[in-house]
Amino acid sequence: MFDTIVYNGTILTMDQRFSTITKGAMAVHQGEIKQVWEYSGKSVLPEAKEHIDAQGGIIMPGLVNGHTHLPMTLFRGLADDLPLSQWLNDHIFPAEAQHVNPKSVVLGARLACAEMLLGGITTCCDGYFLVAHFIEEVANTGIRAILGQGVIDYPAPGVPDPALNVTVARNFAEKWRSLSGRVQPSIFCHSPYTCSAQTLTAAKKAATDLGAVFQIHVAETEAERDQMLARQGSTPVQYLDRLGILDPQTLLIHAVWLDARDIDIVARSKARVIHCPQSNMKLASGVAPVPDMLAAGICVGLGTDGSASNNDLDLWAEMDSAAKLHKVHRLDPTLMAADTVLHMATIQGARALGLDHQIGSLEPGKRADFIVLNMDQPHLIPMYHPSSHLVYAAGPADVRHVMIDGQWVVQNGQLQILDMAKLREEINAFITGSIGRR
Amino acid sequence: MFDTIVYNGTILTMDQRFSTITKGAMAVHQGEIKQVWEYSGKSVLPEAKEHIDAQGGIIMPGLVNGHTHLPMTLFRGLADDLPLSQWLNDHIFPAEAQHVNPKSVVLGARLACAEMLLGGITTCCDGYFLVAHFIEEVANTGIRAILGQGVIDYPAPGVPDPALNVTVARNFAEKWRSLSGRVQPSIFCHSPYTCSAQTLTAAKKAATDLGAVFQIHVAETEAERDQMLARQGSTPVQYLDRLGILDPQTLLIHAVWLDARDIDIVARSKARVIHCPQSNMKLASGVAPVPDMLAAGICVGLGTDGSASNNDLDLWAEMDSAAKLHKVHRLDPTLMAADTVLHMATIQGARALGLDHQIGSLEPGKRADFIVLNMDQPHLIPMYHPSSHLVYAAGPADVRHVMIDGQWVVQNGQLQILDMAKLREEINAFITGSIGRR
Repeated sequence: MFDTIVYNGTILTMDQRFSTITKGAMAVHQGEIKQVWEYSGKSVLPEAKEHIDAQGGIIMPGLVNGHTHLPMTLFRGLADDLPLSQWLNDHIFPAEAQHVNPKSVVLGARLACAEMLLGGITTCCDGYFLVAHFIEEVANTGIRAILGQGVIDYPAPGVPDPALNVTVARNFAEKWRSLSGRVQPSIFCHSPYTCSAQTLTAAKKAATDLGAVFQIHVAETEAERDQMLARQGSTPVQYLDRLGILDPQTLLIHAVWLDARDIDIVARSKARVIHCPQSNMKLASGVAPVPDMLAAGICVGLGTDGSASNNDLDLWAEMDSAAKLHKVHRLDPTLMAADTVLHMATIQGARALGLDHQIGSLEPGKRADFIVLNMDQPHLIPMYHPSSHLVYAAGPADVRHVMIDGQWVVQNGQLQILDMAKLREEINAFITGSIGRR
Repeated sequence: MFDTIVYNGTILTMDQRFSTITKGAMAVHQGEIKQVWEYSGKSVLPEAKEHIDAQGGIIMPGLVNGHTHLPMTLFRGLADDLPLSQWLNDHIFPAEAQHVNPKSVVLGARLACAEMLLGGITTCCDGYFLVAHFIEEVANTGIRAILGQGVIDYPAPGVPDPALNVTVARNFAEKWRSLSGRVQPSIFCHSPYTCSAQTLTAAKKAATDLGAVFQIHVAETEAERDQMLARQGSTPVQYLDRLGILDPQTLLIHAVWLDARDIDIVARSKARVIHCPQSNMKLASGVAPVPDMLAAGICVGLGTDGSASNNDLDLWAEMDSAAKLHKVHRLDPTLMAADTVLHMATIQGARALGLDHQIGSLEPGKRADFIVLNMDQPHLIPMYHPSSHLVYAAGPADVRHVMIDGQWVVQNGQLQILDMAKLREEINAFITGSIGRR
């Protein structure tokens, strides 16, 4: 007797052999995947509390969004198409200073989770401030998450005195590490150019002491790279390496301006990378050398970045852009094939976050984080190769069901836990009363 | 007394001043827009056969897809991530030779129309073969279309003898030019490197004689540019100019490998350009100098290209890519701002096709081609600037209603004329019996 059996779908397992079962079934019990098998529909299915007909759709691991700033959904589309410094200094930083507070981060994070769940993202890795105020809310949405408390050597929301930034982050990670297996605290240093060497090493030590993922934006822009060369005499990656910060529990975000030596250092350190193609495109940061990183054996996941710079949390669009951007950038249509990109959004993303023993593929023993897609819409027919459609044609609206850790969070395209109507009302009231009045 | 009044929505008119009415209403009668006005909801609306509540969504002109190969939906995702020659010679050309026939083009075109209508595209400009076999089908879907009969100096579907290619195209354009105001025939020369000078000039003359749009792929790849330089001693654009082919009724598709002189020539000729960013990215063709073309005053619309090379007919994604690609390519985040891109997808696209007197903006006297979007989903809230959301966050699934020429083709996300269930069945039967058996 199982809790749930899903059947009558094409199963993309993302297991080590990347097996696809054209007509398959999967059994889940107590939040765990118990069996994945070929099922033609002719025999009788094992008993279960519920049998879910995938209606010929695709059953696959939930998507892993490796980089977010959840509360920034509130600033979605606040300002676009501006030079980076003007965008940050005239719009984003003032909006954060004025409107980021213990109440608004909850609203923003909840909105982000609603969007991600509906779009088939089952895991996210976040970095922001005031995280202690929204970590329980995020857990309550049913999503799987790694949430990093921000560390920066400037006054920040909830951390007016930068001298306390690492202490706040350490206390946060310590307090919440026993919250649940599904939601884990982390420490997020903003970048090598906004944190001193002392801050960086102390924050990394705190993360290591507590067994937490250490996240950091690195080499996002050419200006950052040049500034680090001028100040430290080395590239951002080489600087972090010198400080002893690169190891498999360090997550390097963006990693755009890396040279061959940087790539070699990252590969040898086994630090992981999150690629955010759409944010890098919109902010005109540059094109990360992802094909070279993959060739060097670096584990690269995909991320949307915050909604202020993208402007959505759509990992399907991110896959599409990741597949197409590198092709045109190097004039080579064979780069970043659909399968490669799909792995980045699932099992490689899970590996980047240190969660591949739990999620990222559909295999017995893993947690039941999966999605069922409707492949009946005109833009998805005919279908010769499922992975091609997932990368080049599918979108968030094609996601029909989403299960995380054995719990349905979306069924028939409807949120099961979050109350979207209520949230919409709260967001509108908040915006009308604050940001909208600017 | 009007036929239809749409109210309670934000109206993006795309008129000459690009006026936005935050709370507006629009009246339609006999397929024509009669009034667009501010309407707070307090007064009584004029009488009409139907009053449609836009529920606070966006009302805007339907999108114009400036370049398609409709029947190629049947080859969606057939082969990806290959070198261009291998993709064409080993997959696309053989598939076309074997499977493109009077029956399959109808199925493929109908599928393409279903996808476009659901996604808010109200006008497309197509080039393919056997067009006489699907022009009536396309007209019957309710879409507005310019359909070009293909001309190429090789045996092609329906034109086994290339010596007759221009004659077939001329006869097609002549026969169908009185079909309806909504669907117009056109002539589509494949490219300057696959058509002789004689073919090009004869085809252009036929188009001019019949008042039809003349379409041509031009300077899509570096290889084409180099080949033309070697063969003709000039760039593809300069070659077409020498042949006298560039004028306001000529539509240049792709226009990727243009130098400063080419841009100047196109600007002076007033020929129009269709930019297909996602196809250019996926096939690794290159990045068209669109910011320079716009600066030179060239009218540039947007296109998806065929589904074999994209792999969908999603003009929202095309807008998103157009806005982001040029920013990262030139490391300038101010390029291709949301408003600019939105104009390319609506009024500029209409202008490119010579239809801006009829469509592309919501103004009294124009035909009633418009869409209503649902802006209530999590990925579209909050909303500070409608145009930002339309370019950077909206997708086909956000389209609620679509009217073309005064006729509802989509209501509440459902096709009103096309029978999708029947079409799905026919497509599946066709694929199982032919392409799927490869």
